[in-house]
Amino acid sequence: MIARVISLRVKSEVVEEFKAATVSNHTGSLKEPGIYRFDVLQNDADPQEFVLYEIYESEEATLTHKETMHYNKWKQTIEPMLAEPRKSASFKVIAPAPEYY
Amino acid sequence: MIARVISLRVKSEVVEEFKAATVSNHTGSLKEPGIYRFDVLQNDADPQEFVLYEIYESEEATLTHKETMHYNKWKQTIEPMLAEPRKSASFKVIAPAPEYY
Repeated sequence: MIARVISLRVKSEVVEEFKAATVSNHTGSLKEPGIYRFDVLQNDADPQEFVLYEIYESEEATLTHKETMHYNKWKQTIEPMLAEPRKSASFKVIAPAPEYY
Repeated sequence: MIARVISLRVKSEVVEEFKAATVSNHTGSLKEPGIYRFDVLQNDADPQEFVLYEIYESEEATLTHKETMHYNKWKQTIEPMLAEPRKSASFKVIAPAPEYY
């Protein structure tokens, strides 16, 4: 099981539009068979800062995701909203064990 | 719904002990009624770096957690394993909506 943690900082005037576009991506992503979670978080201390918490079954599922319409539409929509380049980190899921997904 | 993202960097010689202690904390934490997730992640690029991804029902549930035996045992066990102070950030969960938990 693979986790991806994506940090994004958006311009102050587009916070609500960013949220709407990202919730659409969340809804589409959860329909992909290889994606188990796709949480959208907004930082309490800084409402311009967002985190996406994504759990994939496999490396292959991360690549399939990048070919979907919802991902590509999201990417194109939010690119001009970013205040700085997004950061991404990849993790092994130690717990819960795969059978709990 | 509240998310807490905790980043911890541990000394290289205690990576396996840290994982075992943190999986115990995960198991205890999931028995708390106000905790919905307690994922333990290890960074692919740097195996000494861990993230805890915790979802709580309420602010009160985050306080209850800090009074439990499993949390306090974990804290005491892992404190000397840390290579630097742990970092914590608090988030609002934008998606999924609360009814999906």
